[in-house]
Amino acid sequence: MTKISVLGAGSWGTALASMLADNGCEVALYGHRQSVVDEINTHHTNAHYLKDWRANEKVVASLDLSWVLKDTDVILFVVPTSAIRSVAKLVKQELDKSGEQPLLVSATKGIEPGSKKLVTQIFKDEIYPDQMDKMVVLSGPSHAENLAQKDLTAITLASTSLDNAAKLQRIFSNDYVRFYTSNDPIGVQVGGAVKNVIAIAAGILAGLGYGDNAKAALMTRGLAEVTRLGIAFGGAPWTFSGLSGIGDLIVTCTSVNSRNWRCGYQLGQGQKLEDVLANMGQVVEGVTTVKAVREICDKYSLDMPISAAIYNVLFEGSDVKDEIKLMMSREMGPEIRI
Amino acid sequence: MTKISVLGAGSWGTALASMLADNGCEVALYGHRQSVVDEINTHHTNAHYLKDWRANEKVVASLDLSWVLKDTDVILFVVPTSAIRSVAKLVKQELDKSGEQPLLVSATKGIEPGSKKLVTQIFKDEIYPDQMDKMVVLSGPSHAENLAQKDLTAITLASTSLDNAAKLQRIFSNDYVRFYTSNDPIGVQVGGAVKNVIAIAAGILAGLGYGDNAKAALMTRGLAEVTRLGIAFGGAPWTFSGLSGIGDLIVTCTSVNSRNWRCGYQLGQGQKLEDVLANMGQVVEGVTTVKAVREICDKYSLDMPISAAIYNVLFEGSDVKDEIKLMMSREMGPEIRI
Repeated sequence: MTKISVLGAGSWGTALASMLADNGCEVALYGHRQSVVDEINTHHTNAHYLKDWRANEKVVASLDLSWVLKDTDVILFVVPTSAIRSVAKLVKQELDKSGEQPLLVSATKGIEPGSKKLVTQIFKDEIYPDQMDKMVVLSGPSHAENLAQKDLTAITLASTSLDNAAKLQRIFSNDYVRFYTSNDPIGVQVGGAVKNVIAIAAGILAGLGYGDNAKAALMTRGLAEVTRLGIAFGGAPWTFSGLSGIGDLIVTCTSVNSRNWRCGYQLGQGQKLEDVLANMGQVVEGVTTVKAVREICDKYSLDMPISAAIYNVLFEGSDVKDEIKLMMSREMGPEIRI
Repeated sequence: MTKISVLGAGSWGTALASMLADNGCEVALYGHRQSVVDEINTHHTNAHYLKDWRANEKVVASLDLSWVLKDTDVILFVVPTSAIRSVAKLVKQELDKSGEQPLLVSATKGIEPGSKKLVTQIFKDEIYPDQMDKMVVLSGPSHAENLAQKDLTAITLASTSLDNAAKLQRIFSNDYVRFYTSNDPIGVQVGGAVKNVIAIAAGILAGLGYGDNAKAALMTRGLAEVTRLGIAFGGAPWTFSGLSGIGDLIVTCTSVNSRNWRCGYQLGQGQKLEDVLANMGQVVEGVTTVKAVREICDKYSLDMPISAAIYNVLFEGSDVKDEIKLMMSREMGPEIRI
C-alpha cells in the first residue's frame, strides 16, 4: 500500500486526501489547527472549507509532522505559498532524521514574493538540492468543492521525470479523476500561479456588469500574458494550452467557487481590498501573486497589460474604468507576435 | 465613406451592421424575409433575434441583393453555412455584372457538409478563384446579444493579406470592440466551426448535472481536438490559443446565449434532438458541423474522442453516460503528444 502524507488541511488538501483514500492509499493529513484535526478524525468533515460533505473515513489527520511523514512514499504539499518555505524546512528536518527520500508533490499554486521562485525551486533550496526528478507538480482545473462531490476532473502531473509522473498517475487516477503527465513542471507552475491574477480581473469585469464577450476576451488575452511569462521562466509554450494553463484559467474565471474571482467581483462592485480580504476567510493567492508578477515583468521587460492594470488597481489606487479605457485604446496590432 | 454590404439579417448580421453604422460606415443589410427587412427599416429593431434593442438608424435593409452590393467596398457574409454557397453564387452574378472586386469577409462559422470545405474555400470555388488576398475571416468570442449591448469585445480578422486585415481592423474597431489581425484564415475558421461541437458537449455535461471541473476538462481536451483538426487543415497551432480558438470556445461553452450550448443542455436533460431543434427557432451550426468533423476524422485518421462521442449521441443513438465512461477509461498518457 502506498502511504501519502498530505500537508495542509484546507479545502484542497482535505479533498485530495479523501480522493487518495478512495483509491486505497494510506493517507496521513497534516493540519496546524487542533479543532480541524479533531473534526476530521471524529466527524470526517471539514465544514469551514467543505460544506455538507464527508471525507473518506480512512483519512487520519494529525498535528504531528513527524508521525505524518513516517515511512511515507509521497509528500503532497497543499499549503499556501506564503507558508511553503517554512513547511519545506520542517520537512527537511524530518527527512534528515529518517533518512527517507520520498517523492515531493506540489499542489500549491503561487510565486514566492521577494525571491520570485516557484514551489519546485523552493524544494530545491530547502529539501532536494540536486534531485529535481523527485519533484512532481499537480495542477489543473479542479475546485476542491467539485472534486469532493466526485465531479469529473482532469489534472496534470508534471515532472522532469516522466516515470515518476506516470507512477503517480497510476496511483492518483480513478473513475472520476483522470490524470495526464507532462514533462514541463515550470510551465505548469507558472500557469497555476498567474491564472489567479487573471481571475481577479475577470471578477472585477463581472462586478462592473460586463458580459460574456468581455470575459472571454480578457481570459484569452490573459492567457497570452501567462504564456509570455511562462516562456520567460523556461516553460514550453504548448503547456499553456493544456489543463494547467487555459483549463485552470477557465475554471478559475468562470466559477463562483473561485476565491480569486469572488475577490475581484467584490472589488468590481466598489468594495475596498482590505474589506474584501477580511471577509473572505481564506487565502486569496492572486493578491500575493500579482506583486511577484509585477517584479518579474520589470526584471524581464515583459508586456503584461492586464496584470499591470490589476496591480495598479489593487496597490496604486487606480480607477479600474480608467485602466479599461487605456487597454481598449492601446495601439492595434496582430494577435500573435512571433 | 466606406460602404459595407452585410449579407444576413439574423442576430449576428444585424448586430455587426449596427456596429459598422456606429463607426460611420454606409451599411446596406441584405435579408431574405420581407417582415424582418421592414421591421429594421421602420422600427430599427429585429425583435425575433435581439430583444429590447434598437439598431443604429442608419442601417438600411433590403431584399434586393443588387442594390445592397452596388458600389460596395466590403461584402460581409453572415449567413448560415448551409446557405453560404448559394449566396456566394448570387454574389458572383452581381459582381460579374458590375465588374467590381470588393473585399469578402466571412463571419459565418462552419464546415460545409459533403465538401468539408471552409467558407474561404467556397469563396474560392464560387467568387475569386485566385484572389485569396481579398478574403478576410472575422471570428472571435462575440455573442451578438453582447455586442449589441456594446459589451467590450475582441475579435480576430484573418487574411493571407495582413494589409487587408489591417485595413478592416481600422474600419471595424471602436471604443467597445477591438480587432486583432492574423495571417491564418484557415486556423481561424476551423476554430470558429469546431468549437460548436464542443459547446454541444459542454451543454450536455451541464444538463446531466456535472460541475465546473468537468466543464473545464472538457473544454481543454476539446481545444486539443480542435487544434489537431486545424493543423490537419493547414492551420497554425498557436492560432487555437487565440480569440478565434480558445476565446470563442470559452464564450460558446460558458454562456446561456449560446445556441449550441443550449441545444446540448436540453439533450443532457433527456430531450430528443428533433424536439430540441424544432424548439430552438434558430440554426444550431454544431449539429451540422459534427457530421463534417466525423468525415474529416475518418479522412485524416484523427483521434477526436469528444467529437466522436457527440456524433454517436446525436446520430447513432448512443447513451451519453456510456460515452463518458468510455472517455474516462481511455488509456492514460501524456497531456501533449509531440
